Amino acid sequence: MDYTYAPGRNHLFVPGPVNIPEPVLRAMNRNNEDYRSPAVPALTKTLLEDVKKIFKTTTGTPFLFPTTGTGAWESALTNTLSPGDKTISFLIGQFSLLWVDQQKRLGFDVDVVESDWGEGAKLDVLAAKLAADPSHTIKAICIVHNETATGVTNNLAKVRKILGECHIQDYDYRHPALLLVDGVSSICALDFRMDEWGVDVALTGSQKALSLPTGLGIVCASPKALEAAKTAKSYRVFFDWSDYLKFYKIGTYWPYTPSIQLLYGLRAALDLLFEEGLDNVIARHARLGKATRLAVEAWGLKNCTQKEEWVSDTVTAVMVPPYIDSAEIVRRAWKRYNLSLGLGLNKVAGKVFRIGHLGNLNELQLLGCLAGVEMILKDVGYPVKLGSGVAAASAYLQNAIPLIPSRI
Amino acid sequence: MDYTYAPGRNHLFVPGPVNIPEPVLRAMNRNNEDYRSPAVPALTKTLLEDVKKIFKTTTGTPFLFPTTGTGAWESALTNTLSPGDKTISFLIGQFSLLWVDQQKRLGFDVDVVESDWGEGAKLDVLAAKLAADPSHTIKAICIVHNETATGVTNNLAKVRKILGECHIQDYDYRHPALLLVDGVSSICALDFRMDEWGVDVALTGSQKALSLPTGLGIVCASPKALEAAKTAKSYRVFFDWSDYLKFYKIGTYWPYTPSIQLLYGLRAALDLLFEEGLDNVIARHARLGKATRLAVEAWGLKNCTQKEEWVSDTVTAVMVPPYIDSAEIVRRAWKRYNLSLGLGLNKVAGKVFRIGHLGNLNELQLLGCLAGVEMILKDVGYPVKLGSGVAAASAYLQNAIPLIPSRI
Amino acid sequence: MDYTYAPGRNHLFVPGPVNIPEPVLRAMNRNNEDYRSPAVPALTKTLLEDVKKIFKTTTGTPFLFPTTGTGAWESALTNTLSPGDKTISFLIGQFSLLWVDQQKRLGFDVDVVESDWGEGAKLDVLAAKLAADPSHTIKAICIVHNETATGVTNNLAKVRKILGECHIQDYDYRHPALLLVDGVSSICALDFRMDEWGVDVALTGSQKALSLPTGLGIVCASPKALEAAKTAKSYRVFFDWSDYLKFYKIGTYWPYTPSIQLLYGLRAALDLLFEEGLDNVIARHARLGKATRLAVEAWGLKNCTQKEEWVSDTVTAVMVPPYIDSAEIVRRAWKRYNLSLGLGLNKVAGKVFRIGHLGNLNELQLLGCLAGVEMILKDVGYPVKLGSGVAAASAYLQNAIPLIPSRI
Amino acid sequence: MDYTYAPGRNHLFVPGPVNIPEPVLRAMNRNNEDYRSPAVPALTKTLLEDVKKIFKTTTGTPFLFPTTGTGAWESALTNTLSPGDKTISFLIGQFSLLWVDQQKRLGFDVDVVESDWGEGAKLDVLAAKLAADPSHTIKAICIVHNETATGVTNNLAKVRKILGECHIQDYDYRHPALLLVDGVSSICALDFRMDEWGVDVALTGSQKALSLPTGLGIVCASPKALEAAKTAKSYRVFFDWSDYLKFYKIGTYWPYTPSIQLLYGLRAALDLLFEEGLDNVIARHARLGKATRLAVEAWGLKNCTQKEEWVSDTVTAVMVPPYIDSAEIVRRAWKRYNLSLGLGLNKVAGKVFRIGHLGNLNELQLLGCLAGVEMILKDVGYPVKLGSGVAAASAYLQNAIPLIPSRI
Repeated sequence: MDYTYAPGRNHLFVPGPVNIPEPVLRAMNRNNEDYRSPAVPALTKTLLEDVKKIFKTTTGTPFLFPTTGTGAWESALTNTLSPGDKTISFLIGQFSLLWVDQQKRLGFDVDVVESDWGEGAKLDVLAAKLAADPSHTIKAICIVHNETATGVTNNLAKVRKILGECHIQDYDYRHPALLLVDGVSSICALDFRMDEWGVDVALTGSQKALSLPTGLGIVCASPKALEAAKTAKSYRVFFDWSDYLKFYKIGTYWPYTPSIQLLYGLRAALDLLFEEGLDNVIARHARLGKATRLAVEAWGLKNCTQKEEWVSDTVTAVMVPPYIDSAEIVRRAWKRYNLSLGLGLNKVAGKVFRIGHLGNLNELQLLGCLAGVEMILKDVGYPVKLGSGVAAASAYLQNAIPLIPSRI
Repeated sequence: MDYTYAPGRNHLFVPGPVNIPEPVLRAMNRNNEDYRSPAVPALTKTLLEDVKKIFKTTTGTPFLFPTTGTGAWESALTNTLSPGDKTISFLIGQFSLLWVDQQKRLGFDVDVVESDWGEGAKLDVLAAKLAADPSHTIKAICIVHNETATGVTNNLAKVRKILGECHIQDYDYRHPALLLVDGVSSICALDFRMDEWGVDVALTGSQKALSLPTGLGIVCASPKALEAAKTAKSYRVFFDWSDYLKFYKIGTYWPYTPSIQLLYGLRAALDLLFEEGLDNVIARHARLGKATRLAVEAWGLKNCTQKEEWVSDTVTAVMVPPYIDSAEIVRRAWKRYNLSLGLGLNKVAGKVFRIGHLGNLNELQLLGCLAGVEMILKDVGYPVKLGSGVAAASAYLQNAIPLIPSRI
Repeated sequence: MDYTYAPGRNHLFVPGPVNIPEPVLRAMNRNNEDYRSPAVPALTKTLLEDVKKIFKTTTGTPFLFPTTGTGAWESALTNTLSPGDKTISFLIGQFSLLWVDQQKRLGFDVDVVESDWGEGAKLDVLAAKLAADPSHTIKAICIVHNETATGVTNNLAKVRKILGECHIQDYDYRHPALLLVDGVSSICALDFRMDEWGVDVALTGSQKALSLPTGLGIVCASPKALEAAKTAKSYRVFFDWSDYLKFYKIGTYWPYTPSIQLLYGLRAALDLLFEEGLDNVIARHARLGKATRLAVEAWGLKNCTQKEEWVSDTVTAVMVPPYIDSAEIVRRAWKRYNLSLGLGLNKVAGKVFRIGHLGNLNELQLLGCLAGVEMILKDVGYPVKLGSGVAAASAYLQNAIPLIPSRI
Repeated sequence: MDYTYAPGRNHLFVPGPVNIPEPVLRAMNRNNEDYRSPAVPALTKTLLEDVKKIFKTTTGTPFLFPTTGTGAWESALTNTLSPGDKTISFLIGQFSLLWVDQQKRLGFDVDVVESDWGEGAKLDVLAAKLAADPSHTIKAICIVHNETATGVTNNLAKVRKILGECHIQDYDYRHPALLLVDGVSSICALDFRMDEWGVDVALTGSQKALSLPTGLGIVCASPKALEAAKTAKSYRVFFDWSDYLKFYKIGTYWPYTPSIQLLYGLRAALDLLFEEGLDNVIARHARLGKATRLAVEAWGLKNCTQKEEWVSDTVTAVMVPPYIDSAEIVRRAWKRYNLSLGLGLNKVAGKVFRIGHLGNLNELQLLGCLAGVEMILKDVGYPVKLGSGVAAASAYLQNAIPLIPSRI
């Protein structure tokens, strides 16, 4: 059944889906179960409680949709907005573009604030637009925390600051627009603070930093978002929060059949994250991101991300010289080195390749990948000095890597 | 992580999710992969081709949505209909009720034709309504093939006959209403003929007779349905067929990330179905259904299904005497015998318990379940003769079971 | 890779290898590890400590040989005896016969005490032989606790009584012969008390009541056996206890490479046994054994075991009438019902078939098997009343089965 | 259950047990089966036929013992020799030392030819000893093909040449001593030719280049060895070839219970080896070995192997300067980098650490390991230039790695 077998381990460095840890694979290796038995609600209860921790929220309400990130987007939008509602949406790369496209097709009046690909969201424009909206016609701000196509991380704390002082207690922000955040390639990897930053809906997908298979779209709603859901008129059933809330109340949790395997998988994934410690997980991603950028620099290549303030610790989009087709790098990685790199998408197709460095990943895995990239660069005619990127990354990592706590 | 461990195998007899065969569990026991590598499209191509066989269609177009049956419903509706469109929908139990509810909430003008629970769809009413609609205001007929809550199978060939002579070539039926069929608890288990019966959208979920985990909502659209999708105005993005069709054309197949594990699992599940032979699979379900009904009769209990013409070969809803609470039977099955039975839902709560007999299941498994039900009936005070149901089922099965082809 | 696929679950009722619980399969689903890292010794330490509990010993020393039961036998013999040593060995069926054969081929002077197959060990003969051995030329008594070929359980407490009063403190029994016990199809299923019964070497295999794959031969040696090992002159290296003891002392535990997967599997298997409670496990086997015997009686067939005092709660050998070939029953079970029964071996070939009822098994699984056996008996021309065995077994079980503790 | 969890993948670079490919893990993820059903003999037959290919023999008879390499040694010896028989055995490192120890303890008269650790077998001594044995008192030559402790590969073709012209047809060599070869860390990785080199018994373990869990000791006997077995007087039962041969003849193959999981695992492992092509597998190991040695050289460290003619393509033992304790390198690798390296054993404890590069492994995995070793060397105070080893290895590999055939 494996049409493309190659010896040794596949080096999976796309920015999702990512490597699944063995304990998670084990937890999912199981027969189906009756989800109406007492066992599944008991398990679900622990998941809903614990999943809040990865959003850093105590007031939010999480939903574990059997869907992908695209479905999670749709749930965030249709539960809080009505057709015709005005939204501001930042387009900074392929995934924010797709979300904008979804927003339009779902009937919202989207005010698209576009940046050059490689730049962050134009937050000064947001400030101006909010200032020009005293009657509060803007219902929601849609922003990706981390644009997976370009490796750009937006500053959410700044977004909140622009939206006004945050009155956590009563969830009444200066400008009442909802803040909807795509955290697909950030949550569980980058610093994310739902409550502190006043995020109203945050979402991620299981196959990203949670290191599970695809299949869970995890959406977390603030009390203000839940309130908005009561009057939002977008048609929705599968993605409707109210069905979930009804079953939460009666304690059976599921309006329709969940994936038993993913529930146990999520339990194992959360256990691993908490065992490592969420802060340590974030620090590990910071190390992996920095090491990657040091290697790119050593190779004499440019990061697609235009400024330091936006660099991403989960994915690095590497720009190649004009005489090289980045898609050839990705093809060759797979064909010769059993290495999976991310393609350049849409506007940056052929111009960048991407190294995903998120999820259950450690430093030596990354160094193996970087060594592979060096050889591929040479393969395609770029005059790289073999070992240079690994050396630069190692010089940093050799100082930065902590001892593994369970092994001290 | 198993809070409710019990020795031995769980006897899973809910009508979904069902038992996963070991070869399918094995196929899914794998790390994530880059779904943009050449391997995943190659795999997907075989799946799309082969999945048509389980719908018995050569002209339909299948979609493998990362969702559940509820999502598959939503995809069927929103791609073919516009808000305000008039539909006829048959309500004969809890699942058709939920689908009707979804149809209403998605903004359609639903003409609900209700039956007593335990009865099939009132097809004579359909005939009358169509006759009274010369201007073709009715856009779709929505019907479940098999109502999982009551164990009632509707006669789809008759529905097509009522809709008029079928002109397969040009897909122009006498009454042009689309025929949308929920085949969640029928496809791969009951005789289902999409092309022959002129079904326009048929759908199922992976955790039913395909014997996979939950997570794939499989939707198959006729050319006429695809045509309708071009003008249907319901908002949709995640469930939109057009995004899939675009990627089918360019050969990458996926508008967003699929579950790698479920794709390989589906491959294995289809391989097993074809190895057994789809007709043999259907015959096996017929045996299991009949054996169950013979046992119920031997126990002196009534089948919730009111007439022989509607009996279901995938699930049997057993009525209990008024002095017994059927929920207690289900609780006790789980607490004492590690047996998972289906609850009575909604109108039949407390009045029926359900034995699911679909998917990867054989006769001795069923007989173990029936022996368990007998003991439980005695536990709760019903004067059953122990062994009576097993005897009745065995008397039939001992004549009916064929040799296993691979072992002759 | 499955040449003999059949729908549904294989009903595995041979007396080993037995069904592996899902948590154990999960625990073993893992890559290899360096067995010299600190993790493996830490794990091994817990295993050695806990495995003593299944032997009911506090003074014994366990060894986890990467071998089968046959290897475990060889380890028991070669570590305690020297070529030419006189042993008394009870031959009561195929497995004791094989052990006797091994004893002879390893050079011991074996005094075989044979019983008719279906009878227990002739313990009165033992008493006579010991009485006639004032000079203590008999060095060891070899006995199977449970003969898997005939379903006969020997009374070990009585053996000890015959050997004389047991002075636990100084391990000086009246007759100093070592007591070597094959507990392959008893330990973890039948009541077994190594210390109380003064057993000097007890052994089992992982694929029996521990419900693991084949691959661990677990041997437990009393202090007296360890003492004997110091002077035993049989050549041995792979099976030598002294190599293990050396590595136990330095804390790395393994003289050669263990199976990482089986170690983690054993950990999971022990955890499940302790969660259920060893006494509950034994009580469950007693229920399964009695239910089986009641069914056999209801069918009008004879148990190969000649007296009630010897009946086995882990395997029942069922005698068939002379006009039936029991091998045909086993063949047909596999070919038509996906049921695996045990063949009659050697002297009882064609005359008995065996139902194994040990390991991770519950009552409804057994009833499914019994229902299958009834149909097969009819298939081969035996005039069984279908349902009769199930009825007899159920009548007993419906009173005897306790609630599942984790689900109360 | 994982006491020592660390994020990301464990980098397993001990020279066995090695990384198990996912398809093999999948194949083994299964319940037990009745090994007496027709399925297991059918599977076994294919295994015995195909396993001969990895030995490059058409005349040999293979045995799949449920044991380890140590057990395979014992089987090779006890089936061909009698106590007191004279053997010549080459001691060149820890594993040959252990084999010598076993030979002595099993009662043979072992003439040990010792080399300095890091040197190959003294074959000139062999020539002399054979020349001085006109009466053919020497019954067997015992030699490891690849000494895992020092990374030394002996030249078996030369051994055969010394033993005299090889008359394949009648298996009558000039000097009739049997040639017993430990191929534990060579077979399936290094060039090995049982028939061509006139090897009489060759053996390996499943957890080495076959990339399975520990648990199979695979022994292959030449016709001459089988002939010798008929008169060999060493006591043996578990390891006895004759029991196997008896069951081979009747077609059930197993004298005792095999591990079902390992049989299916072996099937998958062989399928992968043949898909890659045995010659390609050997070429891959040659690449990995050379790349490792180039890195060691770049680091300014010495290979334990004293001459180029003996270098091993499956394991490299790296010598550290006297002021460094190599055990600290291994400890640190595990504690900080999740990297498992091999310890220096016995005479070279503290002086070497070992990089295993055998089994299911590819080049980027190795480069990740080498990058890790560089950081560790720096950690422990050795003045390595970070990136230097990776650069040297990459420079070679970038030219040497072929395209992956299945992906062209």
